Amino acid sequence: MTDVHARLGAIMIDCHDPEALIEFWGQILGVEAEQRYPGYIFGSKIPGNHIRLAFQKVPEDKTDKNRLHLDLSHGDPEGLIARVEGLGGSRLQDHEVSGFHWTVMADPEGNEFCVTKAE
Amino acid sequence: MTDVHARLGAIMIDCHDPEALIEFWGQILGVEAEQRYPGYIFGSKIPGNHIRLAFQKVPEDKTDKNRLHLDLSHGDPEGLIARVEGLGGSRLQDHEVSGFHWTVMADPEGNEFCVTKAE
Repeated sequence: MTDVHARLGAIMIDCHDPEALIEFWGQILGVEAEQRYPGYIFGSKIPGNHIRLAFQKVPEDKTDKNRLHLDLSHGDPEGLIARVEGLGGSRLQDHEVSGFHWTVMADPEGNEFCVTKAE
Repeated sequence: MTDVHARLGAIMIDCHDPEALIEFWGQILGVEAEQRYPGYIFGSKIPGNHIRLAFQKVPEDKTDKNRLHLDLSHGDPEGLIARVEGLGGSRLQDHEVSGFHWTVMADPEGNEFCVTKAE
């Protein structure tokens, strides 16, 4: 069946070290490397979804704040943040707006993502 | 139940015009605006997934190539590409590596994404 809509198969992340990033993100989201091509790694489907993270090796460095980022939640956000830091990530900023709190983190290559408390 | 892993709730896209982008991406992925906060729009869940697209208004312009991008597929990629162009997107480049073909497109604010033929 051909739907008029497209299927979102993957979120591709440019990086210097696909192996290191699939290891990091695999620990955070519960995925693992599933397919490898030269310069590319595709992760397994994100649990409960049909979308994967994928990583492509690029020569250029990250410069500005990413224009796209991932929003994560967890029942114990401080526990997750501690795990992220233990895996080589960084805590960048905490925000609170109208009672809604979130923490901006970065993966080992500086890609920003946000952590909130799961509802 | 608290899992050790985080839940990926949304892919947040920085932009100048969240209303225009949810309209564009809604047409492409079959989602619609579900929650609005000042400067933010959260889309409905991407069909078959628990992940949403979300849009936040930022003052800064897009500069470099995005470090994260979306990989889409469709049974009729040229048909999808024509729809994207009709909705204000642009065709940037075509690539073929080892028999694998993909087209780099951009949304109305220049955010790159890729289109391949669905398997």
